[in-house]
Amino acid sequence: MIGTGSIAKAHSNAFRQVGHFFNSPYELGLKVICGRNQEKLASAAAQWGWAETATDWQGVVGRPDIDVVDIAVPNALHAPIAIAAARAGKIVWCEKPLATSLAEGEGMAKAMRNVPSLIWYNYRRIPAVVFAKRLISEGRIGQTYHYRATYLNQSGNDPSKATTWRYRRSEAGMGAAGDLLSHSIDSALYLNGSITELTAISHTFAAGRDVDDATLLLARFANGSIGTFEATRYGVGCRNRKTLEINGSKAMLRFNLEEMNQLEFLDATEPANQQGVRNMSVTGPDHPYSNNFWKPGHIIGYEHTFITTLGDFLSTLDRQQTSHADLDAAVEVQRVLDAVERSAASRSWVKLQGRQSGRPS
Amino acid sequence: MIGTGSIAKAHSNAFRQVGHFFNSPYELGLKVICGRNQEKLASAAAQWGWAETATDWQGVVGRPDIDVVDIAVPNALHAPIAIAAARAGKIVWCEKPLATSLAEGEGMAKAMRNVPSLIWYNYRRIPAVVFAKRLISEGRIGQTYHYRATYLNQSGNDPSKATTWRYRRSEAGMGAAGDLLSHSIDSALYLNGSITELTAISHTFAAGRDVDDATLLLARFANGSIGTFEATRYGVGCRNRKTLEINGSKAMLRFNLEEMNQLEFLDATEPANQQGVRNMSVTGPDHPYSNNFWKPGHIIGYEHTFITTLGDFLSTLDRQQTSHADLDAAVEVQRVLDAVERSAASRSWVKLQGRQSGRPS
Amino acid sequence: MIGTGSIAKAHSNAFRQVGHFFNSPYELGLKVICGRNQEKLASAAAQWGWAETATDWQGVVGRPDIDVVDIAVPNALHAPIAIAAARAGKIVWCEKPLATSLAEGEGMAKAMRNVPSLIWYNYRRIPAVVFAKRLISEGRIGQTYHYRATYLNQSGNDPSKATTWRYRRSEAGMGAAGDLLSHSIDSALYLNGSITELTAISHTFAAGRDVDDATLLLARFANGSIGTFEATRYGVGCRNRKTLEINGSKAMLRFNLEEMNQLEFLDATEPANQQGVRNMSVTGPDHPYSNNFWKPGHIIGYEHTFITTLGDFLSTLDRQQTSHADLDAAVEVQRVLDAVERSAASRSWVKLQGRQSGRPS
Amino acid sequence: MIGTGSIAKAHSNAFRQVGHFFNSPYELGLKVICGRNQEKLASAAAQWGWAETATDWQGVVGRPDIDVVDIAVPNALHAPIAIAAARAGKIVWCEKPLATSLAEGEGMAKAMRNVPSLIWYNYRRIPAVVFAKRLISEGRIGQTYHYRATYLNQSGNDPSKATTWRYRRSEAGMGAAGDLLSHSIDSALYLNGSITELTAISHTFAAGRDVDDATLLLARFANGSIGTFEATRYGVGCRNRKTLEINGSKAMLRFNLEEMNQLEFLDATEPANQQGVRNMSVTGPDHPYSNNFWKPGHIIGYEHTFITTLGDFLSTLDRQQTSHADLDAAVEVQRVLDAVERSAASRSWVKLQGRQSGRPS
Repeated sequence: MIGTGSIAKAHSNAFRQVGHFFNSPYELGLKVICGRNQEKLASAAAQWGWAETATDWQGVVGRPDIDVVDIAVPNALHAPIAIAAARAGKIVWCEKPLATSLAEGEGMAKAMRNVPSLIWYNYRRIPAVVFAKRLISEGRIGQTYHYRATYLNQSGNDPSKATTWRYRRSEAGMGAAGDLLSHSIDSALYLNGSITELTAISHTFAAGRDVDDATLLLARFANGSIGTFEATRYGVGCRNRKTLEINGSKAMLRFNLEEMNQLEFLDATEPANQQGVRNMSVTGPDHPYSNNFWKPGHIIGYEHTFITTLGDFLSTLDRQQTSHADLDAAVEVQRVLDAVERSAASRSWVKLQGRQSGRPS
Repeated sequence: MIGTGSIAKAHSNAFRQVGHFFNSPYELGLKVICGRNQEKLASAAAQWGWAETATDWQGVVGRPDIDVVDIAVPNALHAPIAIAAARAGKIVWCEKPLATSLAEGEGMAKAMRNVPSLIWYNYRRIPAVVFAKRLISEGRIGQTYHYRATYLNQSGNDPSKATTWRYRRSEAGMGAAGDLLSHSIDSALYLNGSITELTAISHTFAAGRDVDDATLLLARFANGSIGTFEATRYGVGCRNRKTLEINGSKAMLRFNLEEMNQLEFLDATEPANQQGVRNMSVTGPDHPYSNNFWKPGHIIGYEHTFITTLGDFLSTLDRQQTSHADLDAAVEVQRVLDAVERSAASRSWVKLQGRQSGRPS
Repeated sequence: MIGTGSIAKAHSNAFRQVGHFFNSPYELGLKVICGRNQEKLASAAAQWGWAETATDWQGVVGRPDIDVVDIAVPNALHAPIAIAAARAGKIVWCEKPLATSLAEGEGMAKAMRNVPSLIWYNYRRIPAVVFAKRLISEGRIGQTYHYRATYLNQSGNDPSKATTWRYRRSEAGMGAAGDLLSHSIDSALYLNGSITELTAISHTFAAGRDVDDATLLLARFANGSIGTFEATRYGVGCRNRKTLEINGSKAMLRFNLEEMNQLEFLDATEPANQQGVRNMSVTGPDHPYSNNFWKPGHIIGYEHTFITTLGDFLSTLDRQQTSHADLDAAVEVQRVLDAVERSAASRSWVKLQGRQSGRPS
Repeated sequence: MIGTGSIAKAHSNAFRQVGHFFNSPYELGLKVICGRNQEKLASAAAQWGWAETATDWQGVVGRPDIDVVDIAVPNALHAPIAIAAARAGKIVWCEKPLATSLAEGEGMAKAMRNVPSLIWYNYRRIPAVVFAKRLISEGRIGQTYHYRATYLNQSGNDPSKATTWRYRRSEAGMGAAGDLLSHSIDSALYLNGSITELTAISHTFAAGRDVDDATLLLARFANGSIGTFEATRYGVGCRNRKTLEINGSKAMLRFNLEEMNQLEFLDATEPANQQGVRNMSVTGPDHPYSNNFWKPGHIIGYEHTFITTLGDFLSTLDRQQTSHADLDAAVEVQRVLDAVERSAASRSWVKLQGRQSGRPS
């Protein structure tokens, strides 16, 4: 694993836990954790049981005793590490967003085609989101009319504190668009299919910051629905509010990451006087992953989204299949982000060449 | 109308409005408003268009040009006015609770048998509550296991302010029990049938106050279910929180007066993975009273509970039937309150002679 | 009053009720109700006590015994009636949207300058919305970053039923934009000030319909904030969901018309560990209109938004002031709707000449 | 560890995870898992990495290479195992409820005094509950008036399925009272102090079952407050709904296990027009355990309640202190359960000898 930050912690946890909840043919050995800060390295290694530490990722990614390289570093480093690892024949697991630009992402994809890979769009593998996908696939929503997504946090509101790599173009590529909107786009492509055109605003509130604090867009989807997206680091009052809503001819669906064990559903085919927004606890029985974790009514947390993503990867790896958060899907997100940037810069609508995303079911 | 307080305002409004929302064969003329304070009288008469004012109810209740006497005064005055009015052959509309004691209530009932009457248990005629009754009657709940009721406000928390007649035994008879619990009991008898036995706590927090600030009870119902009730004026944080919950073999129902246009429903006969608490907006279509008021999705307020109660009375009066908030039901509430008082005093279980309440459907 | 539909019912109710809740120097006499359908006319007149009926508005608006003309008919008729009434020197009360186009609205405004007028943007006078305005004016929100508005209903989802004048350009001028978005724009101008530029989608789902079923936009406000708006008749699952959210440097505000007695507020200046979205019941004490209606904790309904609007008009009329939902504000809404139409047609950003709206405080 | 069921899974997870989230001086080695079913044993051992399996707990609890015995078996086995382990000088971790009766619990306590111990009342160590305790300790609630607790699940509603040891007196001792009410009592003693007297209903809905399906009680606390408790396996519609509410002179607090990352708080000392129930996400910053887990806004799940309980134990063990879910607290819960049983049987109030519980802060 390359990286020692908070996401690296979530990854380490997933490596430790996946075998406890998924029956995988693979056992993960935590070999080397790689970072620049010796103190953080030592602490992370001790806490999670990494066998070795290293400060030079170049010296690690090609080691013959390493099968997988996990990338949990600032966005600008994804490409060099992923490409080097793929060329060395390693399985690559990479944080989202895949890249800092579409061109870079396409270059990575080319290099990574020959190895199994996973991009950590973990919110796609939340039980409630997978259950939403199931309801959609079963036709419970009917024709989709509207898709509505927000991802609001307040991390940028204090410019004196918002000073990490996430607020610098050279390291992050994008601001809220890469950090937050990418997740919303990934969910949308997964649940609602391709976007065909969009128009966007990209806005920076803080003086001197060279990435977007907020990105908003209107979009048209290939399935005929229309959508709005809003991602911001100035959503004061919200710490991690990622929502999505779908209105279809037969039903409404709503999901909010802050209450990630729940899915709201209104079945518009029921008698009109009994319709109401139904709050379903997606903790079983007969829900995605409900046999993996706890008894119905006993919730899971943030970290489980990494465990399910990894569990799926390991299960499908065995069958030579790609799992859900795959490379193609991640490139597709980049393609939309690229269109967003172009639209915001040109103040005009931008068309995308549609491709049906989210293929694995 | 006898009374000029805040409830009298709600009654006046209902008199003015009922004809606008219900097609009634009767037209209400606002003849005389009666009270002790000349200034309040003049103001109320002007505001609501009462033709005359009077300070002496005895001189009014027998007037030949009066058909109905409405009683909106402290509880201790209900009996003398109602009995006098009934003896004069007037229709009697009386605020809840009917009386300050069971004996008094039974005396009133005896006197009032010969005239049509209405006791203002208005929360029984909320569309969502009537819809709950309909679902129960249709068997949607199955066997009832639990009934759970609270009525919480914070009116007593500042003893320096809580100084009206409602805090004095001589005028109110009871405290939270008469004011709040009576509504909860009425709803329970209506929705869940008779109570067969109960054990209660009656508690006064404020020094020197001679009525209960809070009354709590456990109860057994004739239908085999068991229940809890809590009514308090020390429910800090709540202004008018009247809730009821029912768990049955086939469904759960929940209602909260603070969101009185909504009814929560969980249908336990649906596939387990699609069960969820459904929040139904009981504003139509095909809901009780939904043709009387506004279009679906457009809510009604507190005052409409009086209008529906009165609308029902006027509709059934025509057919020589009793309507919902009838005299027998009100006496039944007194019987339970009486058992509550005896149980609290004796610190023991008290049995009630069951009688199936809530007869009108 | 010209009109006999469901809005006319709400107006009639307001006329009957305003004097009961506002101390107005004026008494409203219900003289003539005017419509084309004799049966509906007779029924409405009987139900609300209109003294006369008429089928010819031209013959009514100039009558010397008439002081006020209230317009509750399809949008395309607003202009001829309002202009005729204004020319006859009558006070004009007109349903929203003011007009079917900006030019028409400006023409109306010119004709109506000399008479007092009221445009029924009633959702501006909801206690919770006025309280939000108060908090904003007091600086509790700080610098506004985001404004987010939706107005979702499902009225268009069944094309076989959606056949009234609201679905025809000749009578309505616009679809969801005029019906729903106009309310959202009015609220935004009132709470967040002028919009300086916008880009919009206008979409029709139903074949053969010549008005928009849904209109979405991104906007920039004069105060530096950015916003999204979505109005649709295909918001399946929602009957009357009008929401607004504001994120500012010091607080978040949220309002939902379906729970119109509540205002959600998060104060970001409190200690971080005690911040939370606070659900305030805007029913008193010390809330807008809380002395006009019922005791704290006792909610009001849809119709009261008309009563407050009218109550304010009558109060300020006395002082020769304009009240909140005034002519200028209504023209400003038309100006934004016009920009929306032009943007949607040209698929490009459209600038508006800013003017600070919502002047009366 | 003795036991292989679903609770044993939660314990195993806590053993594996505590070192990842708490800086403990102790490292836990998973030595032996003990159970009767060979297949389950092998599976659990493989999944969680237990070094050995055994079918005979007697042969294990005294082994010199064992430091801790964890008990995750039916209630009736707690006493023999705990006593044997304590006599062998082992640290004892025991599932709740401690015992099947007060006498048994007192016997266990006597035997276990000499060794460190932990009773798994894990819901006491939820961040939101610990934060509630902090607010109470800081005087934010003022004088407590009401304590209100429910614990509702629907496990008993299908008697054909409800056939495990939890439904048999010989193995469980009690039904809903031991399983659910014990948690509610533990929370109450922790947050609100000792109960001085109570009156209870114990009810069995299913024919032939010899434990309670539901237990309800009214209680008086030493601090002058009054309370209601309801625990049931017939709370249809609820899978794991454990709630608690407190009304005090200065504030209201509400907690619901189904949304365990949240705490609802209303501060009644704020200006009346700004009071509202505040929904606090107790995920940091400056919340209990917020440095142990994820970033603010990223929730934890059911299993973390075991991790925090164990983390606290290991931290305090080092300092020769007892941690929160200690033996005395567990005996205190038994004392209340015993009073509940006696009250239900005798249909009368039962007094408890008060002792201030929840000592560790």
